[in-house]
Amino acid sequence: MNMQPGKLITFEGIDGSGKTTQLRLLEQYLAARGFEFISTREPGGTDLGLKIRAALLDGAKGSVEPLAELLLYAADRAHHVRRVIMPALDAGKLVLSDRFYDATTVYQGYARGFDLGLVRYLNDLAAGGIRPDLTLLFDIDVETGWQRTHKRSLENNDSESQPNRLDQESHDFRQRVREAYLEIAALEPDRFRVIDAAGTIEHSCERMITEVARLVN
Amino acid sequence: MNMQPGKLITFEGIDGSGKTTQLRLLEQYLAARGFEFISTREPGGTDLGLKIRAALLDGAKGSVEPLAELLLYAADRAHHVRRVIMPALDAGKLVLSDRFYDATTVYQGYARGFDLGLVRYLNDLAAGGIRPDLTLLFDIDVETGWQRTHKRSLENNDSESQPNRLDQESHDFRQRVREAYLEIAALEPDRFRVIDAAGTIEHSCERMITEVARLVN
Repeated sequence: MNMQPGKLITFEGIDGSGKTTQLRLLEQYLAARGFEFISTREPGGTDLGLKIRAALLDGAKGSVEPLAELLLYAADRAHHVRRVIMPALDAGKLVLSDRFYDATTVYQGYARGFDLGLVRYLNDLAAGGIRPDLTLLFDIDVETGWQRTHKRSLENNDSESQPNRLDQESHDFRQRVREAYLEIAALEPDRFRVIDAAGTIEHSCERMITEVARLVN
Repeated sequence: MNMQPGKLITFEGIDGSGKTTQLRLLEQYLAARGFEFISTREPGGTDLGLKIRAALLDGAKGSVEPLAELLLYAADRAHHVRRVIMPALDAGKLVLSDRFYDATTVYQGYARGFDLGLVRYLNDLAAGGIRPDLTLLFDIDVETGWQRTHKRSLENNDSESQPNRLDQESHDFRQRVREAYLEIAALEPDRFRVIDAAGTIEHSCERMITEVARLVN
Protein backbone atom coordinates (compact mmCIF):
# COMPACT_ATOMS: atom_id res chain seq x y z
CA MET A 1 0.00 0.00 0.00
CA ASN A 2 2.87 2.40 0.59
CA MET A 3 3.21 3.18 -3.07
CA GLN A 4 -0.16 4.89 -3.03
CA PRO A 5 -0.61 8.30 -1.45
CA GLY A 6 -2.54 8.17 1.81
CA LYS A 7 -6.21 9.01 1.95
CA LEU A 8 -8.30 10.69 4.60
CA ILE A 9 -11.76 9.26 5.38
CA THR A 10 -13.89 11.20 7.83
CA PHE A 11 -16.94 10.02 9.77
CA GLU A 12 -19.73 12.48 10.47
CA GLY A 13 -23.26 12.41 11.82
CA ILE A 14 -25.39 13.32 14.82
CA ASP A 15 -25.06 11.46 18.13
CA GLY A 16 -26.59 8.02 17.82
CA SER A 17 -25.94 7.78 14.08
CA GLY A 18 -23.58 4.87 14.68
CA LYS A 19 -20.53 6.50 13.07
CA THR A 20 -18.09 5.31 15.73
CA THR A 21 -19.43 1.74 15.53
CA GLN A 22 -19.02 1.86 11.75
CA LEU A 23 -15.48 3.20 12.08
CA ARG A 24 -14.60 0.16 14.23
CA LEU A 25 -16.12 -2.16 11.61
CA LEU A 26 -14.12 -0.47 8.87
CA GLU A 27 -10.96 -0.99 10.93
CA GLN A 28 -11.67 -4.74 10.96
CA TYR A 29 -12.31 -4.75 7.23
CA LEU A 30 -9.09 -2.86 6.44
CA ALA A 31 -6.97 -4.89 8.88
CA ALA A 32 -8.22 -8.18 7.40
CA ARG A 33 -7.11 -6.99 3.95
CA GLY A 34 -3.69 -5.76 5.00
CA PHE A 35 -4.29 -2.05 4.54
CA GLU A 36 -2.12 0.28 6.57
CA PHE A 37 -4.32 2.72 8.45
CA ILE A 38 -4.63 4.77 11.60
CA SER A 39 -7.78 5.78 13.47
CA THR A 40 -8.10 9.11 15.17
CA ARG A 41 -10.73 11.62 16.24
CA GLU A 42 -11.56 15.24 16.89
CA PRO A 43 -11.41 16.74 19.37
CA GLY A 44 -8.77 14.87 21.33
CA GLY A 45 -6.65 13.03 18.76
CA THR A 46 -3.36 14.12 20.41
CA ASP A 47 -1.98 14.67 23.92
CA LEU A 48 -2.58 18.39 23.52
CA GLY A 49 -6.00 17.60 22.08
CA LEU A 50 -6.94 15.59 25.17
CA LYS A 51 -6.15 18.63 27.33
CA ILE A 52 -8.21 20.82 25.01
CA ARG A 53 -11.05 18.30 24.98
CA ALA A 54 -11.01 18.23 28.77
CA ALA A 55 -11.09 22.04 28.92
CA LEU A 56 -14.04 22.02 26.51
CA LEU A 57 -16.10 19.21 27.98
CA ASP A 58 -15.36 19.28 31.74
CA GLY A 59 -17.02 22.51 32.66
CA ALA A 60 -20.69 23.24 33.17
CA LYS A 61 -22.81 24.21 30.18
CA GLY A 62 -22.02 27.79 29.21
CA SER A 63 -18.70 27.78 31.04
CA VAL A 64 -16.74 28.41 27.83
CA GLU A 65 -17.37 31.43 25.62
CA PRO A 66 -18.65 30.25 22.21
CA LEU A 67 -15.86 32.07 20.36
CA ALA A 68 -13.24 30.55 22.67
CA GLU A 69 -14.78 27.13 21.98
CA LEU A 70 -14.55 27.70 18.23
CA LEU A 71 -10.89 28.72 18.56
CA LEU A 72 -10.10 25.73 20.81
CA TYR A 73 -11.51 23.37 18.19
CA ALA A 74 -9.33 25.11 15.61
CA ALA A 75 -6.25 24.78 17.85
CA ASP A 76 -6.95 21.10 18.41
CA ARG A 77 -7.31 20.60 14.64
CA ALA A 78 -4.16 22.57 13.76
CA HIS A 79 -2.11 20.35 16.06
CA HIS A 80 -3.90 17.12 15.07
CA VAL A 81 -3.53 17.71 11.34
CA ARG A 82 0.19 18.46 11.53
CA ARG A 83 1.21 15.88 14.14
CA VAL A 84 -1.05 12.95 13.25
CA ILE A 85 -2.91 13.22 9.94
CA MET A 86 -0.24 14.71 7.66
CA PRO A 87 2.55 12.30 8.76
CA ALA A 88 0.25 9.31 8.24
CA LEU A 89 -0.85 10.52 4.80
CA ASP A 90 2.80 11.18 3.89
CA ALA A 91 3.56 7.59 4.88
CA GLY A 92 0.87 6.40 2.46
CA LYS A 93 -1.58 5.30 5.13
CA LEU A 94 -5.33 5.53 5.26
CA VAL A 95 -6.52 7.85 8.00
CA LEU A 96 -9.95 7.33 9.58
CA SER A 97 -11.09 10.31 11.63
CA ASP A 98 -14.15 10.28 13.88
CA ARG A 99 -15.32 13.83 13.02
CA PHE A 100 -13.29 16.48 11.23
CA TYR A 101 -13.93 20.06 10.12
CA ASP A 102 -17.43 19.44 8.81
CA ALA A 103 -18.50 18.93 12.43
CA THR A 104 -17.31 22.46 13.24
CA THR A 105 -19.11 23.87 10.20
CA VAL A 106 -22.32 22.19 11.25
CA TYR A 107 -22.28 22.52 15.05
CA GLN A 108 -20.61 25.91 15.48
CA GLY A 109 -21.65 27.44 12.17
CA TYR A 110 -25.12 26.28 11.18
CA ALA A 111 -26.48 25.18 14.56
CA ARG A 112 -24.90 27.75 16.94
CA GLY A 113 -25.06 30.57 14.44
CA PHE A 114 -21.42 31.62 14.01
CA ASP A 115 -20.69 33.42 10.77
CA LEU A 116 -19.99 30.68 8.21
CA GLY A 117 -17.21 32.72 6.62
CA LEU A 118 -15.37 32.83 9.95
CA VAL A 119 -15.93 29.11 10.58
CA ARG A 120 -14.64 28.19 7.13
CA TYR A 121 -11.65 30.52 7.48
CA LEU A 122 -10.65 28.85 10.75
CA ASN A 123 -11.34 25.37 9.35
CA ASP A 124 -9.11 26.00 6.33
CA LEU A 125 -6.40 27.61 8.45
CA ALA A 126 -6.32 24.67 10.84
CA ALA A 127 -6.55 22.01 8.12
CA GLY A 128 -3.56 23.50 6.30
CA GLY A 129 -4.73 22.38 2.86
CA ILE A 130 -5.87 18.90 3.92
CA ARG A 131 -9.28 17.91 2.55
CA PRO A 132 -10.96 14.56 3.21
CA ASP A 133 -10.91 12.22 0.21
CA LEU A 134 -14.18 10.73 1.41
CA THR A 135 -16.65 11.87 4.05
CA LEU A 136 -19.17 9.33 5.25
CA LEU A 137 -22.26 11.04 6.63
CA PHE A 138 -24.35 8.66 8.70
CA ASP A 139 -27.82 10.11 8.51
CA ILE A 140 -30.55 9.27 10.96
CA ASP A 141 -33.65 11.00 12.22
CA VAL A 142 -33.19 12.82 15.50
CA GLU A 143 -35.64 10.74 17.50
CA THR A 144 -34.09 7.39 16.52
CA GLY A 145 -30.57 8.75 17.13
CA TRP A 146 -31.59 9.91 20.56
CA GLN A 147 -33.25 6.58 21.42
CA ARG A 148 -29.99 4.85 20.58
CA THR A 149 -27.79 7.11 22.74
CA HIS A 150 -30.39 6.84 25.50
CA LYS A 151 -30.31 3.04 25.28
CA ARG A 152 -26.53 3.18 25.46
CA SER A 153 -26.57 5.33 28.57
CA LEU A 154 -29.10 2.98 30.20
CA GLU A 155 -26.83 0.03 29.46
CA ASN A 156 -24.00 1.94 31.11
CA ASN A 157 -26.15 2.35 34.27
CA ASP A 158 -26.15 6.01 33.51
CA SER A 159 -29.92 6.40 33.52
CA GLU A 160 -30.04 9.27 35.99
CA SER A 161 -27.91 11.50 33.83
CA GLN A 162 -30.38 11.27 30.93
CA PRO A 163 -33.95 12.45 30.91
CA ASN A 164 -36.50 10.00 29.61
CA ARG A 165 -37.66 12.31 26.88
CA LEU A 166 -35.66 14.40 24.51
CA ASP A 167 -36.46 18.00 25.45
CA GLN A 168 -37.62 20.40 22.78
CA GLU A 169 -34.45 22.53 22.80
CA SER A 170 -32.20 19.51 22.32
CA HIS A 171 -34.53 18.14 19.66
CA ASP A 172 -34.48 21.40 17.69
CA PHE A 173 -30.70 21.68 17.99
CA ARG A 174 -30.15 18.13 16.73
CA GLN A 175 -32.62 18.73 13.95
CA ARG A 176 -30.65 21.80 12.81
CA VAL A 177 -27.42 19.76 12.94
CA ARG A 178 -28.93 16.95 10.89
CA GLU A 179 -30.29 19.33 8.26
CA ALA A 180 -27.00 21.22 8.10
CA TYR A 181 -25.07 18.01 7.52
CA LEU A 182 -27.38 17.13 4.64
CA GLU A 183 -27.03 20.66 3.27
CA ILE A 184 -23.23 20.68 3.21
CA ALA A 185 -23.20 17.14 1.82
CA ALA A 186 -25.28 18.35 -1.12
CA LEU A 187 -22.73 21.13 -1.76
CA GLU A 188 -19.85 18.65 -2.22
CA PRO A 189 -21.36 15.51 -3.74
CA ASP A 190 -17.95 14.29 -4.94
CA ARG A 191 -16.64 14.10 -1.38
CA PHE A 192 -19.71 13.21 0.71
CA ARG A 193 -21.58 9.94 0.77
CA VAL A 194 -24.79 10.01 2.76
CA ILE A 195 -25.47 6.64 4.36
CA ASP A 196 -28.93 5.86 5.68
CA ALA A 197 -28.20 4.88 9.28
CA ALA A 198 -31.75 4.12 10.38
CA GLY A 199 -31.52 0.45 9.39
CA THR A 200 -29.35 -2.31 10.75
CA ILE A 201 -25.65 -2.01 11.53
CA GLU A 202 -25.00 -4.52 8.75
CA HIS A 203 -26.91 -2.45 6.23
CA SER A 204 -24.93 0.73 6.99
CA CYS A 205 -21.69 -1.23 7.02
CA GLU A 206 -22.33 -2.69 3.59
CA ARG A 207 -22.93 0.78 2.12
CA MET A 208 -19.77 2.07 3.84
CA ILE A 209 -17.60 -0.78 2.56
CA THR A 210 -18.86 -0.24 -0.99
CA GLU A 211 -17.84 3.41 -0.87
CA VAL A 212 -14.49 2.80 0.79
CA ALA A 213 -13.64 -0.02 -1.62
CA ARG A 214 -14.19 2.37 -4.53
CA LEU A 215 -11.72 4.79 -2.97
CA VAL A 216 -8.93 2.43 -1.97
CA ASN A 217 -8.93 -0.27 -4.63
CA MET B 1 -15.43 56.45 39.76
CA ASN B 2 -18.43 54.53 38.47
CA MET B 3 -19.71 57.46 36.51
CA GLN B 4 -16.70 57.24 34.21
CA PRO B 5 -16.42 54.49 31.63
CA GLY B 6 -13.80 51.89 32.50
CA LYS B 7 -10.36 51.98 30.98
CA LEU B 8 -7.98 49.22 29.97
CA ILE B 9 -4.28 49.62 30.77
CA THR B 10 -1.96 46.93 29.42
CA PHE B 11 1.59 46.14 30.53
CA GLU B 12 4.07 44.94 27.93
CA GLY B 13 7.79 44.28 27.70
CA ILE B 14 10.38 41.53 27.49
CA ASP B 15 11.10 39.25 30.45
CA GLY B 16 13.02 41.16 33.10
CA SER B 17 11.57 44.54 32.09
CA GLY B 18 9.86 44.81 35.47
CA LYS B 19 6.32 45.13 34.08
CA THR B 20 4.75 42.84 36.71
CA THR B 21 6.52 44.69 39.55
CA GLN B 22 5.24 47.97 38.15
CA LEU B 23 1.72 46.60 37.85
CA ARG B 24 1.82 45.76 41.58
CA LEU B 25 3.03 49.29 42.36
CA LEU B 26 0.23 50.76 40.28
CA GLU B 27 -2.28 48.65 42.23
CA GLN B 28 -1.02 50.25 45.46
CA TYR B 29 -1.25 53.73 43.94
CA LEU B 30 -4.80 53.17 42.69
CA ALA B 31 -5.99 51.49 45.89
CA ALA B 32 -4.65 54.33 48.03
CA ARG B 33 -6.65 56.80 45.94
CA GLY B 34 -9.89 54.82 46.00
CA PHE B 35 -9.97 53.83 42.33
CA GLU B 36 -11.95 50.73 41.48
CA PHE B 37 -9.77 48.39 39.48
CA ILE B 38 -9.05 44.76 38.71
CA SER B 39 -5.75 43.14 37.77
CA THR B 40 -5.53 40.30 35.31
CA ARG B 41 -3.14 38.72 32.84
CA GLU B 42 -2.75 36.77 29.63
CA PRO B 43 -2.53 33.91 29.23
CA GLY B 44 -4.34 32.52 32.25
CA GLY B 45 -6.69 35.27 33.44
CA THR B 46 -9.65 32.84 33.79
CA ASP B 47 -10.27 29.24 34.91
CA LEU B 48 -10.34 28.18 31.27
CA GLY B 49 -7.25 30.31 30.66
CA LEU B 50 -5.35 28.48 33.42
CA LYS B 51 -6.05 25.18 31.64
CA ILE B 52 -4.94 26.69 28.34
CA ARG B 53 -1.85 28.17 29.96
CA ALA B 54 -1.01 24.77 31.42
CA ALA B 55 -1.46 23.12 28.01
CA LEU B 56 0.84 25.74 26.48
CA LEU B 57 3.57 25.85 29.10
CA ASP B 58 3.70 22.34 30.58
CA GLY B 59 5.03 20.43 27.62
CA ALA B 60 8.55 20.24 26.31
CA LYS B 61 9.78 22.87 23.87
CA GLY B 62 8.28 22.17 20.46
CA SER B 63 5.49 20.03 21.89
CA VAL B 64 2.79 22.36 20.59
CA GLU B 65 2.44 23.22 16.90
CA PRO B 66 3.05 26.97 16.43
CA LEU B 67 -0.32 27.49 14.75
CA ALA B 68 -2.09 25.62 17.56
CA GLU B 69 -0.26 27.85 20.05
CA LEU B 70 -1.42 30.97 18.21
CA LEU B 71 -5.01 29.71 18.24
CA LEU B 72 -4.81 28.78 21.93
CA TYR B 73 -3.69 32.31 22.79
CA ALA B 74 -6.64 33.60 20.76
CA ALA B 75 -9.04 31.25 22.58
CA ASP B 76 -7.68 32.35 25.95
CA ARG B 77 -8.13 35.99 24.95
CA ALA B 78 -11.65 35.51 23.55
CA HIS B 79 -12.78 34.03 26.88
CA HIS B 80 -10.79 36.51 29.01
CA VAL B 81 -12.09 39.59 27.20
CA ARG B 82 -15.75 38.53 27.42
CA ARG B 83 -15.75 37.09 30.94
CA VAL B 84 -13.32 39.41 32.75
CA ILE B 85 -12.34 42.56 30.87
CA MET B 86 -15.65 43.62 29.29
CA PRO B 87 -17.72 43.18 32.49
CA ALA B 88 -15.16 45.21 34.48
CA LEU B 89 -15.09 47.98 31.88
CA ASP B 90 -18.89 47.99 31.77
CA ALA B 91 -18.87 48.44 35.55
CA GLY B 92 -16.66 51.51 35.12
CA LYS B 93 -13.52 49.91 36.55
CA LEU B 94 -9.92 50.28 35.54
CA VAL B 95 -8.51 47.03 34.18
CA LEU B 96 -4.77 46.34 34.46
CA SER B 97 -3.65 43.46 32.26
CA ASP B 98 -0.19 41.90 32.41
CA ARG B 99 0.21 41.41 28.65
CA PHE B 100 -2.54 41.65 26.04
CA TYR B 101 -2.72 41.30 22.27
CA ASP B 102 0.45 43.26 21.56
CA ALA B 103 2.38 40.36 23.10
CA THR B 104 0.89 38.03 20.49
CA THR B 105 1.72 40.46 17.68
CA VAL B 106 5.30 40.69 18.87
CA TYR B 107 6.09 37.12 19.97
CA GLN B 108 4.07 35.11 17.44
CA GLY B 109 4.09 37.63 14.60
CA TYR B 110 7.38 39.53 14.52
CA ALA B 111 9.61 37.12 16.45
CA ARG B 112 8.27 33.71 15.36
CA GLY B 113 7.42 34.84 11.86
CA PHE B 114 3.66 34.25 11.57
CA ASP B 115 1.96 36.33 8.92
CA LEU B 116 1.10 39.63 10.61
CA GLY B 117 -2.24 39.81 8.81
CA LEU B 118 -3.27 36.48 10.36
CA VAL B 119 -2.02 37.51 13.81
CA ARG B 120 -3.92 40.80 13.67
CA TYR B 121 -7.07 39.08 12.37
CA LEU B 122 -7.04 36.66 15.32
CA ASN B 123 -6.17 39.45 17.78
CA ASP B 124 -9.10 41.58 16.61
CA LEU B 125 -11.46 38.60 16.55
CA ALA B 126 -10.55 37.62 20.10
CA ALA B 127 -10.54 41.18 21.45
CA GLY B 128 -14.06 41.78 20.11
CA GLY B 129 -13.54 45.52 19.59
CA ILE B 130 -11.70 46.14 22.85
CA ARG B 131 -8.59 48.30 22.46
CA PRO B 132 -6.33 49.31 25.36
CA ASP B 133 -6.72 52.94 26.39
CA LEU B 134 -3.08 52.97 27.44
CA THR B 135 -0.27 50.49 26.82
CA LEU B 136 2.81 50.84 28.97
CA LEU B 137 5.83 49.37 27.24
CA PHE B 138 8.68 48.78 29.69
CA ASP B 139 11.76 48.90 27.51
CA ILE B 140 15.08 47.44 28.56
CA ASP B 141 18.11 46.09 26.76
CA VAL B 142 18.14 42.33 26.42
CA GLU B 143 21.26 41.75 28.50
CA THR B 144 20.03 43.74 31.50
CA GLY B 145 16.59 42.11 31.29
CA TRP B 146 18.21 38.71 31.27
CA GLN B 147 20.46 39.53 34.23
CA ARG B 148 17.38 40.51 36.21
CA THR B 149 15.43 37.31 35.45
CA HIS B 150 18.61 35.34 36.16
CA LYS B 151 19.05 37.08 39.51
CA ARG B 152 15.42 36.29 40.31
CA SER B 153 15.86 32.62 39.51
CA LEU B 154 19.00 32.51 41.71
CA GLU B 155 17.05 34.03 44.59
CA ASN B 156 14.42 31.35 44.10
CA ASN B 157 17.15 28.68 44.41
CA ASP B 158 16.42 27.85 40.81
CA SER B 159 19.99 28.28 39.60
CA GLU B 160 20.25 24.91 37.90
CA SER B 161 17.40 25.61 35.56
CA GLN B 162 19.15 28.70 34.15
CA PRO B 163 22.43 28.77 32.31
CA ASN B 164 24.97 31.35 33.42
CA ARG B 165 25.11 33.02 30.06
CA LEU B 166 22.32 33.96 27.74
CA ASP B 167 22.79 31.78 24.67
CA GLN B 168 22.93 33.38 21.25
CA GLU B 169 19.58 32.00 20.06
CA SER B 170 17.75 33.32 23.11
CA HIS B 171 19.58 36.62 22.85
CA ASP B 172 18.60 37.06 19.20
CA PHE B 173 14.99 36.11 19.90
CA ARG B 174 14.70 38.58 22.78
CA GLN B 175 16.34 41.23 20.65
CA ARG B 176 13.72 40.71 17.92
CA VAL B 177 10.96 40.93 20.52
CA ARG B 178 12.36 44.15 21.97
CA GLU B 179 12.70 45.76 18.55
CA ALA B 180 9.23 44.63 17.52
CA TYR B 181 7.70 46.17 20.64
CA LEU B 182 9.40 49.47 19.85
CA GLU B 183 8.23 49.24 16.24
CA ILE B 184 4.55 48.70 17.05
CA ALA B 185 4.74 51.37 19.75
CA ALA B 186 5.90 53.84 17.11
CA LEU B 187 2.90 52.92 14.95
CA GLU B 188 0.40 53.89 17.66
CA PRO B 189 1.96 56.76 19.60
CA ASP B 190 -1.40 57.84 21.03
CA ARG B 191 -1.85 54.50 22.79
CA PHE B 192 1.71 53.43 23.69
CA ARG B 193 4.00 54.99 26.25
CA VAL B 194 7.56 53.67 26.17
CA ILE B 195 9.06 53.69 29.66
CA ASP B 196 12.81 53.34 30.07
CA ALA B 197 13.07 50.37 32.43
CA ALA B 198 16.86 50.26 32.72
CA GLY B 199 16.96 52.60 35.71
CA THR B 200 15.58 52.15 39.20
CA ILE B 201 12.15 50.76 40.05
CA GLU B 202 11.26 54.19 41.43
CA HIS B 203 12.22 55.90 38.20
CA SER B 204 10.00 53.62 36.07
CA CYS B 205 7.19 53.90 38.58
CA GLU B 206 7.24 57.68 38.49
CA ARG B 207 6.97 57.69 34.70
CA MET B 208 4.14 55.15 34.87
CA ILE B 209 2.17 57.12 37.45
CA THR B 210 2.50 60.28 35.39
CA GLU B 211 1.01 58.54 32.36
CA VAL B 212 -1.75 56.80 34.30
CA ALA B 213 -2.69 60.00 36.14
CA ARG B 214 -3.18 61.73 32.78
CA LEU B 215 -5.56 58.96 31.73
CA VAL B 216 -7.67 58.61 34.85
CA ASN B 217 -7.89 62.11 36.28
